[in-house]
Amino acid sequence: MIVHPTFLINEARCRENIRAMALKARKNGLCFRPHFKTHQSIEVASWFREESSAITVSSLRMAEFFINAGWKDLTLAFPVNIRALDTIQRLTRAAEIRLLVESNEVIDALDNGLAKETKVFVKIDLGYGRTGIPANNVEAIDRIIQRLGHCKTLNFAGFLSHAGHSYDARSREQVAAIHKASIATLTKLKDRYSQDYPELILSIGDTPTCSIMDDFPGIDEIRPGNFVFFDLMQVLIGSCQPEQIAVAMACPVVAIHPSRNEVIIHGGGVHFSKEVLDDPIHGRHYGQVAEATTQDAAWGAPIAGAYLKKLSQEHGTIVANPAFIDSLKIGDLVKILPIHSCMTANLMRDATLIVPA
Amino acid sequence: MIVHPTFLINEARCRENIRAMALKARKNGLCFRPHFKTHQSIEVASWFREESSAITVSSLRMAEFFINAGWKDLTLAFPVNIRALDTIQRLTRAAEIRLLVESNEVIDALDNGLAKETKVFVKIDLGYGRTGIPANNVEAIDRIIQRLGHCKTLNFAGFLSHAGHSYDARSREQVAAIHKASIATLTKLKDRYSQDYPELILSIGDTPTCSIMDDFPGIDEIRPGNFVFFDLMQVLIGSCQPEQIAVAMACPVVAIHPSRNEVIIHGGGVHFSKEVLDDPIHGRHYGQVAEATTQDAAWGAPIAGAYLKKLSQEHGTIVANPAFIDSLKIGDLVKILPIHSCMTANLMRDATLIVPA
Repeated sequence: MIVHPTFLINEARCRENIRAMALKARKNGLCFRPHFKTHQSIEVASWFREESSAITVSSLRMAEFFINAGWKDLTLAFPVNIRALDTIQRLTRAAEIRLLVESNEVIDALDNGLAKETKVFVKIDLGYGRTGIPANNVEAIDRIIQRLGHCKTLNFAGFLSHAGHSYDARSREQVAAIHKASIATLTKLKDRYSQDYPELILSIGDTPTCSIMDDFPGIDEIRPGNFVFFDLMQVLIGSCQPEQIAVAMACPVVAIHPSRNEVIIHGGGVHFSKEVLDDPIHGRHYGQVAEATTQDAAWGAPIAGAYLKKLSQEHGTIVANPAFIDSLKIGDLVKILPIHSCMTANLMRDATLIVPA
Repeated sequence: MIVHPTFLINEARCRENIRAMALKARKNGLCFRPHFKTHQSIEVASWFREESSAITVSSLRMAEFFINAGWKDLTLAFPVNIRALDTIQRLTRAAEIRLLVESNEVIDALDNGLAKETKVFVKIDLGYGRTGIPANNVEAIDRIIQRLGHCKTLNFAGFLSHAGHSYDARSREQVAAIHKASIATLTKLKDRYSQDYPELILSIGDTPTCSIMDDFPGIDEIRPGNFVFFDLMQVLIGSCQPEQIAVAMACPVVAIHPSRNEVIIHGGGVHFSKEVLDDPIHGRHYGQVAEATTQDAAWGAPIAGAYLKKLSQEHGTIVANPAFIDSLKIGDLVKILPIHSCMTANLMRDATLIVPA
């Protein structure tokens, strides 16, 4: 019996999401290097084994976790923290780890600090405005690549980018426009340096682009992560249908307030995270209720108008129509689709239930 | 050396925050039953030992955690999850645990399920609109108390409420208005039932009220939690001054973008939580940068205009004025005051550094 808030993972849906993405990568001749920050789970990771031995992580903690589970080919898709050189040194001995650079300070620290030859990507900013050298700053890119050319231990592997601004898209057309611009920019960079570095690769990563687009001309590698679970944010962007969402929170009903059309669940900010979505139907909310099924560990289609309106540390407030409220009793389980599965999965790592395929 | 994102706890400030609140409770003849959900730490808990042996928690997991650490008198300030009766049964054997009820279903489940006599509070909603019987619904309150009167194992202990709407206050006057209304309502309830239950107690809980107000006429117990750490939200409400905030995040700088006046840190939603504050100076943000000090594990006053503008899973984007940006180099530590210390502390439980008094 499910007693406490529990993160349900539907194995069949995950495997189907993985299969579809791996197929797309194969068709396009792309290296499939999924981002494991989404699930941070040895078991979910094992479902990728047939499709890929190369993975992406976003912290040294995650790198160590998956290296200990037998993964040997990792890209750390996060700027190098030069305070952690000892850990990087230790982990690069245990596995092949590609790193990201965008500054001389980091290049020098790595080149002086690492003993083993290490591949590095130059991080390119395609317009997201988080990390990376802006793609149009060719002089800065030139300088970084020249500097890499003089390094003892670092080898320039190619350009890596994350078009995170695709998360602001609200249609396939908007995602397509971002994708086309990204490809145009990156292939121009590849052309500029391919004579000196004929093996340089272009690596891109976001789930909206990788889910929605079919063609990746000039790209060598994709690193999507979220697609294994998907979530309500991806539905709103257009990356998936609700029935592809592979995870849901199961939360016990602890109080019912029919006069307000509200139900209180055990399930708060420490379970869902406070990631919020502003959708045209519900406004700002923290999750959408899915239809009940006869099984505790399964769920149906999302119910329009039934959503998580408020979160405290441990409480969640669901608002819904009177018929749904009337159908519930204290002690029932409500299933809720998360806004951002990566954030919820991170919080629920110790309270996960995998529903076998 | 601090290598990874680290949650700094300043022991001297915590002890001063505890001392001040305990003194206020003593002066008013109140039972001081601090809420331990804020810190979830055995060591921070130990600083309360001299002032209180009674505590509040908001989950069975926390109850078990603190019972194992030797705390024997707990109120579980969360509606009973009747799916967890076995755990409740086990924990009520190990310690004195007061529970909250607001419905017949829960009363019946507890009365039939528990072996040991247990004190229960009736949860009263003072206008927050989360859990509890609305204070003006006297008939419903009558019915619940009558039902409790027929129970074999449950004893009516009094009325418990949490004026969470004080978090929306933005001045001491607004908090005072909520406090006065709460006291008027609760003392009326006490009068109504005190003949039958002369020992019934009134328990209130929120940090804004308990920090700002000096008089608690008719109230028997306070359960504030956040005050031990405080945070930017409490500064905005008026509960504390910035120099009373006892916690800060220390995060390594991993990239600098002078053209955007931005710095990227290792410190994202999985560290800070995505709790957001909308303040008149910075708009919506996730934390404010504090002045650097010569020590890694200390921090100075908050810097106006230097704040955490964006959070991804692992990245944080700080925006600040050019002089501050110029003062930083890659590998430096930035100290950031959290929006909501309870949420950040929950995420950082395994990456905490206590700075001894």
